[in-house]
Amino acid sequence: MHYNNFIYLLNDSIENNHLQRALDAVKSFRAADLADVLAQLPLPNSQILLLQLPERAYVFSHLSAEQQARFAEVLPRATLAEIIGEMPSDKRVDLYKHLDEQQQNALLPALAQAEREDIRQLAAYTEGTAGAIMSSEYATLKPNMTVNDAIRMLRQEAPDTETIYLAYVLDDARKLLGVVSLKQLILAQEHQTIEQFMTQDVIFAEVDRDQDEIVKMISRYDLLALPIVAATGEMVGIVTYDDAMDVASEEATEDFLKSGAVSADSKMSLKTAPIGLLYRKRVFWLVFLVFGSLLSGIGIAHFEDIIAANIVLVFFLPLLVGSGGNAGSQSATLMVRALATGDVQFKDWFSLLGRESLVALALGATMAIAVSLLGYFRGDELISLVLALSMLGIVLMGCLIGMSLPFILNRFGMDPASASAPLVTSICDATGVLVYLFIASQILVLPV
Amino acid sequence: MHYNNFIYLLNDSIENNHLQRALDAVKSFRAADLADVLAQLPLPNSQILLLQLPERAYVFSHLSAEQQARFAEVLPRATLAEIIGEMPSDKRVDLYKHLDEQQQNALLPALAQAEREDIRQLAAYTEGTAGAIMSSEYATLKPNMTVNDAIRMLRQEAPDTETIYLAYVLDDARKLLGVVSLKQLILAQEHQTIEQFMTQDVIFAEVDRDQDEIVKMISRYDLLALPIVAATGEMVGIVTYDDAMDVASEEATEDFLKSGAVSADSKMSLKTAPIGLLYRKRVFWLVFLVFGSLLSGIGIAHFEDIIAANIVLVFFLPLLVGSGGNAGSQSATLMVRALATGDVQFKDWFSLLGRESLVALALGATMAIAVSLLGYFRGDELISLVLALSMLGIVLMGCLIGMSLPFILNRFGMDPASASAPLVTSICDATGVLVYLFIASQILVLPV
Repeated sequence: MHYNNFIYLLNDSIENNHLQRALDAVKSFRAADLADVLAQLPLPNSQILLLQLPERAYVFSHLSAEQQARFAEVLPRATLAEIIGEMPSDKRVDLYKHLDEQQQNALLPALAQAEREDIRQLAAYTEGTAGAIMSSEYATLKPNMTVNDAIRMLRQEAPDTETIYLAYVLDDARKLLGVVSLKQLILAQEHQTIEQFMTQDVIFAEVDRDQDEIVKMISRYDLLALPIVAATGEMVGIVTYDDAMDVASEEATEDFLKSGAVSADSKMSLKTAPIGLLYRKRVFWLVFLVFGSLLSGIGIAHFEDIIAANIVLVFFLPLLVGSGGNAGSQSATLMVRALATGDVQFKDWFSLLGRESLVALALGATMAIAVSLLGYFRGDELISLVLALSMLGIVLMGCLIGMSLPFILNRFGMDPASASAPLVTSICDATGVLVYLFIASQILVLPV
Repeated sequence: MHYNNFIYLLNDSIENNHLQRALDAVKSFRAADLADVLAQLPLPNSQILLLQLPERAYVFSHLSAEQQARFAEVLPRATLAEIIGEMPSDKRVDLYKHLDEQQQNALLPALAQAEREDIRQLAAYTEGTAGAIMSSEYATLKPNMTVNDAIRMLRQEAPDTETIYLAYVLDDARKLLGVVSLKQLILAQEHQTIEQFMTQDVIFAEVDRDQDEIVKMISRYDLLALPIVAATGEMVGIVTYDDAMDVASEEATEDFLKSGAVSADSKMSLKTAPIGLLYRKRVFWLVFLVFGSLLSGIGIAHFEDIIAANIVLVFFLPLLVGSGGNAGSQSATLMVRALATGDVQFKDWFSLLGRESLVALALGATMAIAVSLLGYFRGDELISLVLALSMLGIVLMGCLIGMSLPFILNRFGMDPASASAPLVTSICDATGVLVYLFIASQILVLPV
């Protein structure tokens, strides 16, 4: 409420041309907060405010790519080029990729030569790789510089680099020789040269590495930034820890959504996304999963006689089939997450099968005892036997399907996270129906 | 394979007392890699190697808390106290909390007074709050220091602080007056005093704040570290970006596991966890969900006559009921994740209901058309009508249940992430059975 009132008053100030009052009101706001304010104001007023902000390019880079594209349509081309020129290189190329071709072509000539080149180069890297998330602004030093020279140089470069806490030592061919932290520089003697104390054994990654491997390296080695190197050995960029945090959060969101059978889009806001988009993100899996359910239906049709003769079987159908699906979802969830965090690799599948079978047997036995008691009270000894055997078989099958599906999907080049609970449930349901009714048909006698 | 061979040879060197050879072999390893090696070796050999490592306390703090506790049992008490004394304060207290009471009491007297006090203080904070993840090692400055003095002081403090890239400016009562980055220090004039250029409007958090809010703040404002302040206004610690990354990854894992109805334990390894632990993490939800399935069974029993008279209804049962569960899982997944990332707050529930209903109607209509065609081919017009109406109702109900459950759980003080796909599916299944068979009983005539 409070915040909405604030936005209302701010809007009012801008409309009445009390611009200074509006600027004063947001003076203490950080870039991320200012970006939120801009996103809430109507576009014309938002634009007026943005242009007056002291660090407008920095604030602009905190807007979502969609919002940036919205601004890009209305800002005067020269102003847009100016803002884009001041943006961090990784944010700049993200915006560029979100523009349509016409906008891209209109924008490029308005930029300085160096920025144009930079955008072209960064935009060329495949989405999802190190190249697509790296920044081209980092501090570099020469190996034979003294500490004093190095500090003087970092002072000069500070405004144009993502971080001056790490400086990369390159030779003339831009090959990475070492890394020096500002901490090392501060602790070193003034007359020492960089090569005397730089860290030579640098952790780096190739430009075509998967972005989630980059995140894992930064997190594992507690890095402030990871240097990125081309196939030629030339250093081409850095990925900083804050960009890694953003990527990690996006990947976690996408995996989570996939686990719920929603086609992933980590940037979609539930509050503001168009209804049509929400519909499209969900309808594919819903319709696809119909086929799984149809298999269950066909299974049931096949055993229609035994059901008609023992209608009590239908009473237990949801329980048995549901338990298989639940156990399978658990297995798939554990496996997908273990694969995502690196706890388990694809080559471990076979050795994990044994462990999973033991867990599944223990779970199945527990459930079998429970359900056979229920069966005894509602049916007779035979029903009770059918239920116990079926439950054991169904839970075992469910677990093995759940743990294998992520590996199978990967084998066919799909993301293992697509082994969503609903998908596993559908497959386990169909299997469960068959196991249950087959066992029933073997044990229970049909009336002649 | 390669790695296993390496461990084998390393083990061999240690057993044959070729310790120098073993140390040379791991010379280029980082702390995180060394910790992996230690975890793979048999405990006695691992202990021998650890004690010879140059940065043993730093390596030790990269072991998991379980592995640390395993070492704590066998290391001589004086050595353990020495290692613990050198560990970062946040890692040290984590280990302390993992020891049993007897070990804790044996350890404390062996530590220096300051470390003992530090552990006691940090261990007192509630798990899951800022206090429980913060470190008490950070650089501080006085407001009237000159730049030269400040740099000299940071040089001295460097070995004992988590980061020297940020220094906090405190008054005599340890109240936070400002923050200075090493970048600001490098760019300032030598004779300036700290208060002339420090950032006064510091972003900070209270010590009892939820740890996930801390992570969100660090990520939102791209902070290297966030200062933590007691209720008295006194600064008590910092949370660094790398600890925030670890917490974020643990929270994502726990949410993911909960979504699959596995009681969360982000540190459990699927490869090495005891079978009994894996069983316990899963059996509660499996048995609990039985009650949901029983409701479905009771629903079916109630409508036994209409089923017996129209056995074709059973054929479509999995399809209809499954679709409701799937749609509901999608809604719950979207909602849980939106709550976790802060996209949606609990107060938004009512306003989201309208949007969700529209999406649900669109999805339900799509599915209704599909299923009514199937029904027409396998049954007749009446069956087709029953199926279309049921599907629309079931998908709508499923979506509304799925999106409301996280809010309801929160209302009862439970984690909204417990609204797992299996739980939603179980509830939607029971609802779906009732909706389907009720509609069928109203439209189809029972034979008299």
